[in-house]
Amino acid sequence: IQKLEMELDSIEKGGYEHFMLKEIFEQPRSILDSMRGRLELEAGHLNMGGVRAYERKFVNAERILIVACGTSWHAGLVAEYLIEDLARIPVEVEYASEFRYRNPIITERDIVIAISQSGETADTLAAIELAKSKGATIFGVCNVVGSSIARATDAGAYTHAGPEIGVASTKAFTAQVTVLTLLAMIVGHQRGTLSDTKLRELMMELSNIPAKVEKALQLNNEIEEIAEIFKDSTNFLYLGRGYNFPVALEGALKLKEISYIHAEGYPAAEMKHGPIALIDENMPVVVIATKDSSYEKVVSNIQEVKARKGRIIAVVTEGDDVIPAMAEFVIEVPATSDVLMPLVSVVPLQLLSYHIAVLRGCNVDQPRNLAKSVTVE
Amino acid sequence: IQKLEMELDSIEKGGYEHFMLKEIFEQPRSILDSMRGRLELEAGHLNMGGVRAYERKFVNAERILIVACGTSWHAGLVAEYLIEDLARIPVEVEYASEFRYRNPIITERDIVIAISQSGETADTLAAIELAKSKGATIFGVCNVVGSSIARATDAGAYTHAGPEIGVASTKAFTAQVTVLTLLAMIVGHQRGTLSDTKLRELMMELSNIPAKVEKALQLNNEIEEIAEIFKDSTNFLYLGRGYNFPVALEGALKLKEISYIHAEGYPAAEMKHGPIALIDENMPVVVIATKDSSYEKVVSNIQEVKARKGRIIAVVTEGDDVIPAMAEFVIEVPATSDVLMPLVSVVPLQLLSYHIAVLRGCNVDQPRNLAKSVTVE
Repeated sequence: IQKLEMELDSIEKGGYEHFMLKEIFEQPRSILDSMRGRLELEAGHLNMGGVRAYERKFVNAERILIVACGTSWHAGLVAEYLIEDLARIPVEVEYASEFRYRNPIITERDIVIAISQSGETADTLAAIELAKSKGATIFGVCNVVGSSIARATDAGAYTHAGPEIGVASTKAFTAQVTVLTLLAMIVGHQRGTLSDTKLRELMMELSNIPAKVEKALQLNNEIEEIAEIFKDSTNFLYLGRGYNFPVALEGALKLKEISYIHAEGYPAAEMKHGPIALIDENMPVVVIATKDSSYEKVVSNIQEVKARKGRIIAVVTEGDDVIPAMAEFVIEVPATSDVLMPLVSVVPLQLLSYHIAVLRGCNVDQPRNLAKSVTVE
Repeated sequence: IQKLEMELDSIEKGGYEHFMLKEIFEQPRSILDSMRGRLELEAGHLNMGGVRAYERKFVNAERILIVACGTSWHAGLVAEYLIEDLARIPVEVEYASEFRYRNPIITERDIVIAISQSGETADTLAAIELAKSKGATIFGVCNVVGSSIARATDAGAYTHAGPEIGVASTKAFTAQVTVLTLLAMIVGHQRGTLSDTKLRELMMELSNIPAKVEKALQLNNEIEEIAEIFKDSTNFLYLGRGYNFPVALEGALKLKEISYIHAEGYPAAEMKHGPIALIDENMPVVVIATKDSSYEKVVSNIQEVKARKGRIIAVVTEGDDVIPAMAEFVIEVPATSDVLMPLVSVVPLQLLSYHIAVLRGCNVDQPRNLAKSVTVE
């Protein structure tokens, strides 16, 4: 019986050593699945039943609140940038646990977006119930069909990531970001803040994302070599600006979760207000420095880290010829629109945390102290 | 000449070994100075010229944006809780560096509160200029009279903390929180969301804060002993909920800045979504667990840390008889209203970081890599 179980386990992992690695590699597919039937490139049309059903509400919203925990909260931060950028509606992202206990301001005019992979996160569920009692419209973004949160919301959109077994969320995160990107595009287009032309461009570019994620996954061996070098580090900083700021937080969280290394994410410019004091030759600093509107500023931040002898691992856009001359290690990802970059730039950070954890002998799929779905408050 | 300079230096420090310690101990006075002439207890009246001049604007505001960096950003987080709680106006707190580069949504109906001790913080100044160009009303909270930010704003209120020399901000933070508390009280009372009775109660309690801070300062020797025990730790977690969540962030930042220890603050409930994996017998966890509306939940969080063998240093309310039985070290601060607790609960964290830095032989007043006023972007 034991043999069979082991074989079953190995079949379920599809030849990968861990569920987490399998799930990282499934992302081209899970991102595609999360847009399938929603992104109609030829017709130039976006479908998302849950959004369309509440279209007037979204178009007229004066404010959108996002409640979530952990990795889903990071997807919420990306959504804040997306919705404010494309649909020009002010967004406030709250930790569900803080939101529910502080008598939040919420009315029947508000839309609350609740994000949870499992759909069972206790604090998020409680935040939804509170917002519902104040008359707000609740929109859910969950992965598990028929979960408590999916049932408690007025409308929603499932992420079609498939079952996620690894405790550290990877493909669920990119599926959440995909769905939230589609949502921001639909609402922005309806509100007239996203032009037909720009919508078309973004749709085209979004349809290219699975192939770009595929390309980012080819960095696997290269990243394993970097992991080998830094596996014994006790601390990491992750820096990013703009759309890559939530990616920095998410990259740091992955490393915390599975390798028990104290990693912290920061908006790059805040470094000068404190964290830079930590930097010396023992502190690896991961900088997400793809070519976007804040690129020049990030280059300055890299110079500041270098001046303090910090060891820099930079995630850059293919063809960048400035940062490779400054950083000790460079990981090149394909270029894409600023707006869509988190879907690509997070991939090498997932792989980095995975390899470091494996090299340290950690139980990648079931890290100590953590549960896949946090159903306690 | 050298001798005279040394004497001068010692006179300036008023008998304290470092400016930072002097400034921590000045807080009963600097908090009082920041309310003097503003809190008229007998008349039951609050004066703040800058707020009164824009009273209609504040009363009718649909949204308040706060922009700041570093410690001032933490004061902004406290202000978010205060203003939403007392005045029921939605508040969004932004890192100035992120805000300015992401085409933020801002209109002439918005009020932007900019917080900066020096009044020269480059990113905050640039964020103000951007918000002004969109027609928003800018309210400044600065310590340095006539500074660039003070001059660039439409109205404002100075913190009367006096000159702050130590690079790690202490008395400027509590002065900022004092001024922002007064602002929230005035606006809440004008909007009718803070009743006469409740306003009176809060005014009375606020007037007691300097004496309570004085009492918290008497913990100095006790905290020095705790610092002795933990001075060689390489990592710290700081946890808090509600009004004590920004205090956790601020406590962690102090330790980062002056002792170069990697400390990170978290809302206590988010621990289960990742950071709990870091916890073992080598990880000190500072929990701010005063008796407030989230006390029971924080007690559960302490139990979770204890179950993972984390070493707990808890800041509790005087007379607490539950947590002392669970935590390895307990620091008792005087009771006060939830709303005003950050002014008291931050004090032992400032002292803890100070003593740890001194014991590690760090240059407390001039930590490496940091400038007192960040005038570069």
